[in-house]
Amino acid sequence: MEIKKNLLPADKLQPKPKDENALGFGRIFADHLFAMDYEEGKGWINARIDPYGPIALDPAALVLHYGQEVFEGMKAYYGKDGGVYLFRPEANIKRMANSCARLCMPAPDKDIFLEGLMELLRTEKGWIPKAPGTSLYIRPNMIATEAALGVKVSDNYLFYIMVGPVGAYYPEGFAPTKIYVEEKYVRAAPGGLGEAKTAANYAASLFAGEKAHEEGYTQVLWLDACDKKTIEEVGTSNMFFVIDGEVTTAPLDGTILPGITRDSAITLCKHWNIPVSERKITIDEVIKAQEDGRLDEAFGSGTAAVISPVGSFTYRGQEIPVGKGETGDISRRLYDEITGIQWGERPDPFGWVTKVC
Amino acid sequence: MEIKKNLLPADKLQPKPKDENALGFGRIFADHLFAMDYEEGKGWINARIDPYGPIALDPAALVLHYGQEVFEGMKAYYGKDGGVYLFRPEANIKRMANSCARLCMPAPDKDIFLEGLMELLRTEKGWIPKAPGTSLYIRPNMIATEAALGVKVSDNYLFYIMVGPVGAYYPEGFAPTKIYVEEKYVRAAPGGLGEAKTAANYAASLFAGEKAHEEGYTQVLWLDACDKKTIEEVGTSNMFFVIDGEVTTAPLDGTILPGITRDSAITLCKHWNIPVSERKITIDEVIKAQEDGRLDEAFGSGTAAVISPVGSFTYRGQEIPVGKGETGDISRRLYDEITGIQWGERPDPFGWVTKVC
Ligand SMILES: Cc1ncc(COP(=O)(O)O)c(C=O)c1O
Ligand SMILES: Cc1ncc(COP(=O)(O)O)c(C=O)c1O
Repeated sequence: MEIKKNLLPADKLQPKPKDENALGFGRIFADHLFAMDYEEGKGWINARIDPYGPIALDPAALVLHYGQEVFEGMKAYYGKDGGVYLFRPEANIKRMANSCARLCMPAPDKDIFLEGLMELLRTEKGWIPKAPGTSLYIRPNMIATEAALGVKVSDNYLFYIMVGPVGAYYPEGFAPTKIYVEEKYVRAAPGGLGEAKTAANYAASLFAGEKAHEEGYTQVLWLDACDKKTIEEVGTSNMFFVIDGEVTTAPLDGTILPGITRDSAITLCKHWNIPVSERKITIDEVIKAQEDGRLDEAFGSGTAAVISPVGSFTYRGQEIPVGKGETGDISRRLYDEITGIQWGERPDPFGWVTKVC
Repeated sequence: MEIKKNLLPADKLQPKPKDENALGFGRIFADHLFAMDYEEGKGWINARIDPYGPIALDPAALVLHYGQEVFEGMKAYYGKDGGVYLFRPEANIKRMANSCARLCMPAPDKDIFLEGLMELLRTEKGWIPKAPGTSLYIRPNMIATEAALGVKVSDNYLFYIMVGPVGAYYPEGFAPTKIYVEEKYVRAAPGGLGEAKTAANYAASLFAGEKAHEEGYTQVLWLDACDKKTIEEVGTSNMFFVIDGEVTTAPLDGTILPGITRDSAITLCKHWNIPVSERKITIDEVIKAQEDGRLDEAFGSGTAAVISPVGSFTYRGQEIPVGKGETGDISRRLYDEITGIQWGERPDPFGWVTKVC
């Protein structure tokens, strides 16, 4: 498919942010986005680079009423050789296709997805920040645009990719987080949408997240919907524990997002001959391990922070400290290795890195 | 609050649909909508009647990524005295406020909500169809408009009310429906969003709904998320059973929508001294009742169809017929009474009907 380019003239471009150490997350967007339309009977049409600007939606657009929507999150970085790189983009494209299937949506063709992304990155190369730890956040999004009231699968969709520079997640170094273990509210149940990257799961997380923030916690740890015992995931990260030297994370049973950072961490542990298992682990097991002095580390994994060490969990009013209250060795090693591969500072034995330009 | 009127000139209005017996549902929208904005720090501002037309949303608008959204559904009718009426609008306004609370959204003030709706109905009176059984469907909707990537509660919202004429639900009389009892997929779990009227629940229902439609069923009956035994609700209706003369429906435990038609049906049964209970009922109990010849009736209740009789349930490949395969007496009586009250043909002892003009 040909990509039409509707580029802004040079004098209409926004100034780039001056201070790359104050980028924050998700507030600054580049001048253009990639977009294409899906129409029932025609398939994907109108692939284009458009100026970033408002999307016109019918007030009855299905996405605005029934949440038929999927998205992705990934990053582009400057490598130490001055090239621009992506980390495992084909994994995001695959996951988006899976999310689409669950939401009855037509998956964007994988080649045109990647081609559109590459074209956008070449266009917006100037928006990729260079300060250590910074990157260009990439948000592919797909929404149901047909105007119809009455629950139905949309005939039409808009797919777009927007990008924006984001700051280093740990400008002052790793800071272990405080996590609230949620027993009342539920993010996703078996048979629900948990493994899809779709609006519904995040809408379901808002209330508990707000409550936790107000009480000084960074994130909510979700337990399984039925027994409220088995650990699922945390906020926008998958959850890992290191107990007696064994790395453990929840299995992909349909209620959690299959994180790409999660998969990378598991792969690296195996590569290093660190015992790692994907299995159900309960909050009781974590408490018991802590009591016995065997809870060495706990960390979240996700695109935004890569690895985020947990300092403590609060469950039923009790604080469960993790390890020695400092970032653990495996957390640190995974963070250094993954970011090292991303930035081209370490070898890439698994072919995770894709050069853009 | 003053409502600004931005009305289209007479020659820009759309022609009204000619055939009121072919209106369908949710495809035709009136010329104007009511809208207002919420801005953190300012509250609700800019109440207005605007021409119906595209809404401009930032590609990063939170509703498009994280589904922070709530809506309502209600109807306006011509009464037999030629007046225009609403059915229990304060109940919809109350429910929307509850949905807002669950989604961390500021509820629209109840007086301005009702005032905006009334003003819109007076403006669009010509769009209310007159053929028997037709009505003007009303869709209040509220969406998170702040541009931010990263899961958060929005600072800004758009609230709007759109309306459109809808056809009679039963142009050829009551037709008992075929319902598929879903055991694999889940709409809402305890601790989830089930009792809020929000996009996430409908997104969660799409896949199972599609599958059921393809196999010739009208709707999906949801079972509880954990045991898959207790009956929840069906598609966009609450579910009632009449067993041995007792009317039964699921209790409001947080996983189902508190339907206004459900409440009206319960109130009427009590008024008529028909035994009625809100209690957990399992699919096994329904099967047993059918086997013993005690499953007299089953019906859904909702704004769109008012009462929709169920002809059979299909569970684990077995068809469970209901009653004698015809619309039952209580289903019929409730339908006649509720629509009779709505259309001003019967007395309104509970003060359910509100005159618009
Ligand atoms: C709910 C949820 N879990 C886990 C993750 C981590 O996934 P990934 O490592 O692919 O970023 C994310 C973030 O994308 C998420 O939103
Ligand atoms: C999930 C769901 N349950 C039940 C109902 C019935 O509610 P009401 O009687 O208020 O229309 C609806 C429709 O509004 C619905 O969407």
